[in-house]
Amino acid sequence: MKNDGQFADSALNELSSLLKRPHLFLTITELLGWDEQVYLPPGGAEHRAEQLSALAEAAHAAVSDPRIGEQLAALESPEAFEKLTAPGRAIIRCARRDYDRATKLPAEFVREKAAQTSRAYHAWAAAREKSDFASYAPMLEKNIELVRREAAHLGHGGTGAEAYDYMIDQHDPGMNAAVTEKLFGELKAGLAPLVRRITESPVKARPDLLRGFPVEKQHAFLRDVTERIGFDYNHGRIDISIHPFCSGTGDDIRMTTRYDENNPLDSLFSAIHEAGHGIYEQGLTAGVRHTALGQAAGMGVHESQSRLWENQVARSRGFWRWFEPRFRAAFPEQMRAISPDEFYLAVNAVQPTLIRVDADEVTYNLHIILRFELEKKLFSGELAIADLPRAWNAASRELLGLEPQNDREGVLQDVHWSAASFGYFPSYCIGNMVAAQLWYSALAERPALEDDFARGDFSWMLKWLREKIHSQGKQHDTLELVRHATGGELSPKWLLRYLEERYAPLYLK
Amino acid sequence: MKNDGQFADSALNELSSLLKRPHLFLTITELLGWDEQVYLPPGGAEHRAEQLSALAEAAHAAVSDPRIGEQLAALESPEAFEKLTAPGRAIIRCARRDYDRATKLPAEFVREKAAQTSRAYHAWAAAREKSDFASYAPMLEKNIELVRREAAHLGHGGTGAEAYDYMIDQHDPGMNAAVTEKLFGELKAGLAPLVRRITESPVKARPDLLRGFPVEKQHAFLRDVTERIGFDYNHGRIDISIHPFCSGTGDDIRMTTRYDENNPLDSLFSAIHEAGHGIYEQGLTAGVRHTALGQAAGMGVHESQSRLWENQVARSRGFWRWFEPRFRAAFPEQMRAISPDEFYLAVNAVQPTLIRVDADEVTYNLHIILRFELEKKLFSGELAIADLPRAWNAASRELLGLEPQNDREGVLQDVHWSAASFGYFPSYCIGNMVAAQLWYSALAERPALEDDFARGDFSWMLKWLREKIHSQGKQHDTLELVRHATGGELSPKWLLRYLEERYAPLYLK
Repeated sequence: MKNDGQFADSALNELSSLLKRPHLFLTITELLGWDEQVYLPPGGAEHRAEQLSALAEAAHAAVSDPRIGEQLAALESPEAFEKLTAPGRAIIRCARRDYDRATKLPAEFVREKAAQTSRAYHAWAAAREKSDFASYAPMLEKNIELVRREAAHLGHGGTGAEAYDYMIDQHDPGMNAAVTEKLFGELKAGLAPLVRRITESPVKARPDLLRGFPVEKQHAFLRDVTERIGFDYNHGRIDISIHPFCSGTGDDIRMTTRYDENNPLDSLFSAIHEAGHGIYEQGLTAGVRHTALGQAAGMGVHESQSRLWENQVARSRGFWRWFEPRFRAAFPEQMRAISPDEFYLAVNAVQPTLIRVDADEVTYNLHIILRFELEKKLFSGELAIADLPRAWNAASRELLGLEPQNDREGVLQDVHWSAASFGYFPSYCIGNMVAAQLWYSALAERPALEDDFARGDFSWMLKWLREKIHSQGKQHDTLELVRHATGGELSPKWLLRYLEERYAPLYLK
Repeated sequence: MKNDGQFADSALNELSSLLKRPHLFLTITELLGWDEQVYLPPGGAEHRAEQLSALAEAAHAAVSDPRIGEQLAALESPEAFEKLTAPGRAIIRCARRDYDRATKLPAEFVREKAAQTSRAYHAWAAAREKSDFASYAPMLEKNIELVRREAAHLGHGGTGAEAYDYMIDQHDPGMNAAVTEKLFGELKAGLAPLVRRITESPVKARPDLLRGFPVEKQHAFLRDVTERIGFDYNHGRIDISIHPFCSGTGDDIRMTTRYDENNPLDSLFSAIHEAGHGIYEQGLTAGVRHTALGQAAGMGVHESQSRLWENQVARSRGFWRWFEPRFRAAFPEQMRAISPDEFYLAVNAVQPTLIRVDADEVTYNLHIILRFELEKKLFSGELAIADLPRAWNAASRELLGLEPQNDREGVLQDVHWSAASFGYFPSYCIGNMVAAQLWYSALAERPALEDDFARGDFSWMLKWLREKIHSQGKQHDTLELVRHATGGELSPKWLLRYLEERYAPLYLK
């Protein structure tokens, strides 16, 4: 890799050049992962695993290149650091985090974690099949202990509470359990009554009335929608996979959706959600995607971008003023008996469910709060693993008004913990809060924003996000970025206001 | 990579383990190449080039790992080598070839060659556009000189003739210009009269009568055909690209075709051709694909597998006895006015053309002989580069009875020489000769082979190729493998006999 000469400081240039290789291996790994979900023939799975293992080795060698350590040490000296601008410092901060993670975890620990999480995954899958939490409990215990040791290796302290803070910070730089708890507490207090009022309302959405939508026409429609809101198909594509996802770098984004003839809104909103992720990546500064200047700020902020397009924008009246006539033109037969009110209500269906991935945007947050509260107690020791199913069911009754009939539709429903992925769930809800706060900030600047949408014009919204969020890369932590973009502290009040303003007129008239 | 413990000899095991990594990087590179042709969004091209460059670096480091050199040196000592079985010796022979190629070419030379062939490619494309050979001639001269130096670096002598032998051997181990010249001379002598008789025949094939074949139905049909002859879709897939190709390893073969509603036989025979390559790769021994035991014997043999399925099998009467009714059932309207004789003649259309890639299987060989004779003279110095267009046109008139009106439809039509890929064209024709020789060997064992095809049964043919060719990997050189599989020396007489037997009854009744 040759020195790309982008920075005035020559040591920074050298560091930037060294960071290119690990970034390329990462994007190659992502492409192979995408291919695995989308096009890999079944018999190629074992060979793919070998390819990924060879790539992981090459990526690890690249990210732990001792020359990176040397450049970092030089740049972190007080004299050198002082001379750097804020972007330079951000590059160093992020590179240090990645380098430490690559070099401070003993190889033996990395191997142990890989083997343990693989075992835990299979134990979870088997336990879920039989709805039998007890058989999986020892694996969960080991996973929590692994994370505690990982946090200790990286200098974040070895207590459970410290380990949980470390995990949250991994996903959302700068966040921790205490900040999250305060935000989620306020959100819960405001959200519970709204959900109760909607659930008790006689108004019921009927998305099940939408039936018989041919897949090819669904595809053409959602491609038009995602392109119009700003996804650049010159630097990306959409394919089909069982679970929708978005991967790749802004130069080449691979997103997916799935199709069901009797559930066109699922394909469409999945695609808009993934397009939101893709639009963010495409908006990160090109040419520096291997440094903090061209990387996403964190998981919560990433989720804010997918959610903002999916929810605030694509479930709005303005959006459908433009797209409903087009939807009806594409599906005249299927839409004949559906009134505009019925259709808009189906777009904004709310119905509490036990399963997180099936949840609407109102109750979704309660699923996350439930998981956060349990994770936190597991790590602090307030909750024993054996008591987890009981605690889960009680929280589900309290928050969602629904009690799982078995572990499969309760504590065993999600895969994340089996991968030792703790502190990940909160990002989803942080993303929802950030999205709503960005939405009202944008509205303050352009009150008639929905009139743009009604004309099929999303360019102001996109430009605003490009400036406030995308162009910032990973230069700020989550809370700083929200401050920078909105001028205020992150608060759940915007999400509560948004949900009230959107859903009360529909369900509580 | 852990030692895979497949061989009794521990040094051989160690070598085999070391060969795994370069093989994996090669298959990753192939996957990225496939994706580039099939799914890459246009704006991702530059990023893809960077990914490929990082992979090339990692692959080069893996293939030139000094531990491979150490193991090779130890295994090549007379005492050690003597103890090895033939397969072990083949592994070492091939590994030595790859290791020398990776380590003996100076880095400076490799860079120079990459830069020069890139320049030559662009010069060729521009010259072809303007049909102006003179502007490209200096690049061709440099490419020939590069190849001479490459051969010298690798110990094959520095004369032009030695360099050309080296290039032929690169593609077909054990072959050289003298052997090729003798084979091609005999072939030319027999082929020229047959082509003349066909061209002068009043019988004319009318593939242009096949019009309006919907792409989806073409796809379904060719998928059925390729699966039935033996392509394993559990370990491979077929997609669409501008130029059909086949890549990947037997665990995961990616082949492509292209569709034209008014040329269904092109899609079909392209797919069968690529499936023939894929069936070969899938038949190579799994688990040792990183060694000579599980690798293809060479380009000519590879081409023999694609050609045998495409031509001897899929243009036979037996084949169409099974498939014609199915083709008519899939395309009743389109086939209504086409008689069985017209259809079979369209499947076996012969029509001399100036352009190699458009040629039928009879005249195709003349295109190759033309290129071989010119390449040989360029390297020996008998032909000056400036005289190449004139020599090309004269040869075209002599061999094909057609004279190019410009360089674009003459000497500039093919890309290969711009990539310094000399000695590559002969493989196509060697493949045709090997295919025909295998065909008559198989027929000698099972005279009623076409009756199998007429029942839609290709299993005996596949099993025979698995045993005679696929399971042999790269243990023999091209001529040895032909001897092993057919019991005779490679000869053009089988190809001449096949073409006579297939085409004389159609055109010369």
